[in-house]
Amino acid sequence: MSGELEATLRQPIGAWQRADARAADVAVSSRLRLARNVAGLPFPPRLQPADTAALLQRVEDAVAAIPAALGHFTFTRLAPLAPLDRQVLVEKHLISPQHAQQARGGLLLRPDEQLSAMVLEEDHLRLQALFPGLQLPAAWELASQLDDALEASFDWAFSDALGYLSTCPTNLGTAMRASVMLHLPALCWSGRIGGLLGELGKVGVVARGLYGEGSAASGNLFQISNQTSLGQSEADLAAHLQAVAREIVVRERSARELLVAEQRPVVEDRVWRAYGLLGSARLLSSSEALTLLSDLRLGSDLHLLPPIRPDRWAELLVLTRSGFLQRQDGEAPPAQRDERRASMVRERLREALTPPAEGAGSPPGEQGSAAGG
Amino acid sequence: MSGELEATLRQPIGAWQRADARAADVAVSSRLRLARNVAGLPFPPRLQPADTAALLQRVEDAVAAIPAALGHFTFTRLAPLAPLDRQVLVEKHLISPQHAQQARGGLLLRPDEQLSAMVLEEDHLRLQALFPGLQLPAAWELASQLDDALEASFDWAFSDALGYLSTCPTNLGTAMRASVMLHLPALCWSGRIGGLLGELGKVGVVARGLYGEGSAASGNLFQISNQTSLGQSEADLAAHLQAVAREIVVRERSARELLVAEQRPVVEDRVWRAYGLLGSARLLSSSEALTLLSDLRLGSDLHLLPPIRPDRWAELLVLTRSGFLQRQDGEAPPAQRDERRASMVRERLREALTPPAEGAGSPPGEQGSAAGG
Repeated sequence: MSGELEATLRQPIGAWQRADARAADVAVSSRLRLARNVAGLPFPPRLQPADTAALLQRVEDAVAAIPAALGHFTFTRLAPLAPLDRQVLVEKHLISPQHAQQARGGLLLRPDEQLSAMVLEEDHLRLQALFPGLQLPAAWELASQLDDALEASFDWAFSDALGYLSTCPTNLGTAMRASVMLHLPALCWSGRIGGLLGELGKVGVVARGLYGEGSAASGNLFQISNQTSLGQSEADLAAHLQAVAREIVVRERSARELLVAEQRPVVEDRVWRAYGLLGSARLLSSSEALTLLSDLRLGSDLHLLPPIRPDRWAELLVLTRSGFLQRQDGEAPPAQRDERRASMVRERLREALTPPAEGAGSPPGEQGSAAGG
Repeated sequence: MSGELEATLRQPIGAWQRADARAADVAVSSRLRLARNVAGLPFPPRLQPADTAALLQRVEDAVAAIPAALGHFTFTRLAPLAPLDRQVLVEKHLISPQHAQQARGGLLLRPDEQLSAMVLEEDHLRLQALFPGLQLPAAWELASQLDDALEASFDWAFSDALGYLSTCPTNLGTAMRASVMLHLPALCWSGRIGGLLGELGKVGVVARGLYGEGSAASGNLFQISNQTSLGQSEADLAAHLQAVAREIVVRERSARELLVAEQRPVVEDRVWRAYGLLGSARLLSSSEALTLLSDLRLGSDLHLLPPIRPDRWAELLVLTRSGFLQRQDGEAPPAQRDERRASMVRERLREALTPPAEGAGSPPGEQGSAAGG
């Protein structure tokens, strides 16, 4: 395993996620994916083993052709990776669950994890650019640069009538999928999320949970994406989703203001309880961790709790995932995972949170403890 | 209102409760009550207003006749007290809920609150001695001294055949009621409390909740008392209940050991969550406070949490009661009571859980449990 990949598997978030971002109080991250298929080759579902091996080799060779200005990329084949390593890549949103399970393709990755490509997932390549906060136009620009760079090595399947050709017809046209991960605790709390999700369909936008299609919206996290990729330019599609996301950001902010205005003690109680539990619990399931981290973040964003940096929070989202936790722990039995998760959260929170000033609650964790754990 | 009573109403616990005690890890307090009626006067239910006034005056006059060696007592009539003041006296276990509601009688009280007498509750006088931990023989000794002292002023209704005469026939004989308040979280947790309570009846012992007859066992607190007061001497009755209580203490300790041996992570999680919530919540109902304080105390007694002194804990039990809280707050609207309770608990816990200064000796909780076996 390359040193770069080992670093990726060890770090909960990529370097890109440490940058400052716009609307980061609601928009966690922006992602842009471009589906690209190599002309003259069958789509992945019908690709023969010999062609598969050849394509993987071609991508590996293409790494050297990427201009240095775009960064130094590495290429990793998924098959030799341990299932747990592949799961960590899923938890970091670098590959899809399907890609991890098939383990047939590979991952092209820049060490800051901002630019990557799944190789032989549903399409020959799926390029991906990630930005913190709400930055779809920038993500389009960057993904497009990687696309240009790879065109030196590949001839993409393209039709004047249909645009980029891809395995699934819903990706025809630009073959672009723009997504924004949104943290919507107040819209969920007030029950207005249902109506909002209903409206999205009318503007060509679809909402999913934290891990894409079919996953539940745990932690009040929703990923919105464009439903079709046809009939508009990439820049227009990105700008449209950016505008929809911005509208949701505005609504979430109003919902937060209203919540505090109308139910301040209840909101304070909820976020402080999350703070207390995250800092004290000795057993924490991944689902409870996600719920409490959502409340913690809301409290921080509303200035009701000590501030937590968005990147520290994003780290905790990944650190509490089962795969990531298990990989750090080596061979720890699953029964101890909830213990380990709780202890890791306490440790990280102590670092991430500035202790509250006098008059606020007691700090989480073992402060003042004489007891052994 | 006398300065002494004002102090009683302001302090959550009496001075007696600050002393070190045996078996304090399970036995919160011991109480001994003696029912006494004045010869020649009808029992309270049939006492006429003129006689009522005369009796109250006689008790007030009797205060001066109590030997100085037994302490300086004050006498307070309940009628002029605000309902909230009477409720605080109930929450401190100095008068019964019925006595507070009737507000017809009075309270004879030593400033340390260890010795007292309800005047014109169900009987003309009900003398009460309180001790921390498991100390019924000592409580009998002390109550008996007050009884002797009052005999200088009163001639008790007594029959050679029936013993002390009292309004309710179940108090005939010694007219003595010995009680121990027990904290039984592990027996409750393991579900063995049901069987235990069933056994108690066979040895003439009855169990009630925190505030006596008809009250639920909130906070895993149970008050056990002798069912009858007939056929044995006071000393024997006290010794019998003391032995029963000691047996329950032993069983609770085994249950705690077993709990930790078999489910340590679960126990740690539960007590640390209570610690975190008490230190963080912004809204706390009296019932949740009691539940969390029970878990906190268990964690402290098991050395899983920072130690909390038994008297500090006993203070919190009273401080979180609605009446006590409301009285401290003056005219705060009830809606703010849960907020006020939460903030008071956070404040007190920060003080209570601070380890004692160097040279201050080991925490009393540890002494209690080490001396108890």
